Amino acid sequence: MSKAKVTITDVAKASGVSNSAVSYALNGKPGVSQETREKVLKVADQLGWRPNKAAKSLSDARTNSVGLVLTYDPAVLSVEAFGMELITGLTARLEEAGYSLLIRSSRNMRAELDILDDWIASGAVDGVFLQNVELGDPRIELMSHHLEMPTVVMGDESLAGGLISLSTNERDGVRVIAEYCADQGHRRIARVAGPENLGHTFIRDNAFMEVAARLGLQYTCLHADYTPEGGRKCTERLLSLPNAPTAIIYDNDVMALTGAQVAAVRGLNVPQDLSVISWDDSFLCEVNALGITALGHNIIERGRTAAGLLLDLIDGKPVESVWEPQEKLVVRASSGPLA
Amino acid sequence: MSKAKVTITDVAKASGVSNSAVSYALNGKPGVSQETREKVLKVADQLGWRPNKAAKSLSDARTNSVGLVLTYDPAVLSVEAFGMELITGLTARLEEAGYSLLIRSSRNMRAELDILDDWIASGAVDGVFLQNVELGDPRIELMSHHLEMPTVVMGDESLAGGLISLSTNERDGVRVIAEYCADQGHRRIARVAGPENLGHTFIRDNAFMEVAARLGLQYTCLHADYTPEGGRKCTERLLSLPNAPTAIIYDNDVMALTGAQVAAVRGLNVPQDLSVISWDDSFLCEVNALGITALGHNIIERGRTAAGLLLDLIDGKPVESVWEPQEKLVVRASSGPLA
Repeated sequence: MSKAKVTITDVAKASGVSNSAVSYALNGKPGVSQETREKVLKVADQLGWRPNKAAKSLSDARTNSVGLVLTYDPAVLSVEAFGMELITGLTARLEEAGYSLLIRSSRNMRAELDILDDWIASGAVDGVFLQNVELGDPRIELMSHHLEMPTVVMGDESLAGGLISLSTNERDGVRVIAEYCADQGHRRIARVAGPENLGHTFIRDNAFMEVAARLGLQYTCLHADYTPEGGRKCTERLLSLPNAPTAIIYDNDVMALTGAQVAAVRGLNVPQDLSVISWDDSFLCEVNALGITALGHNIIERGRTAAGLLLDLIDGKPVESVWEPQEKLVVRASSGPLA
Repeated sequence: MSKAKVTITDVAKASGVSNSAVSYALNGKPGVSQETREKVLKVADQLGWRPNKAAKSLSDARTNSVGLVLTYDPAVLSVEAFGMELITGLTARLEEAGYSLLIRSSRNMRAELDILDDWIASGAVDGVFLQNVELGDPRIELMSHHLEMPTVVMGDESLAGGLISLSTNERDGVRVIAEYCADQGHRRIARVAGPENLGHTFIRDNAFMEVAARLGLQYTCLHADYTPEGGRKCTERLLSLPNAPTAIIYDNDVMALTGAQVAAVRGLNVPQDLSVISWDDSFLCEVNALGITALGHNIIERGRTAAGLLLDLIDGKPVESVWEPQEKLVVRASSGPLA
């Protein structure tokens, strides 16, 4: 197992051709005959030659890895099903192309920008994913000035500044949920939203206000941070209102689960007294003892699609932004008609 | 933002010294005076020079990244809280040292061995983590023959073949759970275990048989695959036994949650008719509408510790294997005395 590393010179000697001919052949470049190419590849395989990633990246700028910065509060990162589902989808598709996912964690936007700057300058990755796009996000401006670094924005096209994006139809999701609540007889609905600075929160905020007005629903919204504690506090506040809502929509699964807990502790029956609805469906909603109604999302598939877009960009193929298919509401025990 | 990349030649010109003097100064190597070194560092900083990762790795073999292969069924990977907690802990500690986590996914041991082979040959990472160690695991043999690639085994010392390991005291966990069940008056206990080929499953299997014999408990065990479906099927089988168990211990949170669901569907009251206990505590156990009793584990801390060990190995510091602190059972609503 501890054999010495096989070099291009070894392959050249064994093949009886020059080092440069071996290099052309192994890198799939013109400059050698088909016969020589086949001989070199066969010999290289027999000797167990493997490309040196570092040398390779100096010569053709490919590292066969793409970057993802996890900019999250670790408290959120570890409890949301979302993150691992996304990584599952991304790595599954990347593996098909022999690509690695290079992960770094950052605590804030400034740190993420530093990492992106570093990747651009060092060429440590062949492309990057951006997620959780904010309004006026400085990462979008940065990557727009560095089109040599392929970038896929996992977020709404309207926020992506012309970069290739994978969009979720947030407005449509809002409409589906609000119409469901109205159909069940709810007149006062509330939402425990994600952070206000996030682009997709902003899009949902506006869409909810519009559709509530259209349907004649009273609509209240509090912004939280996706954590269990955030969901708990906002639910407490909403249920203490004189005209408390009869249905609460949560922007993630974790907050919906703690919201349902808070209701139970306050002696409310879910769904007879209060309907609880989660934006992101996940295993957590499904397996909870009280199943949580949720807007279906296939996050693994989202990861696969985003990875496919980035690989195509890296390969110089023509790529267009993609919209995810429309979501359906998965109705479970946590929601129903107003009693 | 789109400034051209600053090269060593640029720094040399602006400093009035040779390229090699700049290289020595920037790489912290002897060969230049302290005065020159300080001047070069100052100029490099002013110009915005950044190290080229690829060139750097050719010269000193450091890539500032460490590798983790996720060898899982994607169906498990995306639902277990464990994976994301581990990645959170790993990346948090790595970031403190400016290190990245390079992730690849594989479907089986053969594919993981290929990836490790590739990393050893190409030097694409400075060190690797191994997890889910099997009995007679070929990765242990491989890495034992390549001590030049620092390796940390996240698994029992007895399985690590002399490599540096971070061990969990599985036998102690088994004792805590079995004694709790006996204290609550249970005489027939069962376990829905993880895959039989995993080293830690084997250790628990033996420890459970021993402690059950000592406490005079009737003990049954079925092996599953950590998935919701696996947990469901095994629970069905156990509850169909003529002398069904009154307490079931599950090797992960996901199977415990589906186990509790199966019991409810069969009209059993948890915990009056059946106690449900999870091995790994996680957010899922805590936030479930019926709180699940679980053996506490701080997986984020485990990740931080493992990353610290690997960084120390890479830096050539003296490193010894570590045992995690003893776990406590977190008792919640899903378990209690035999009715």
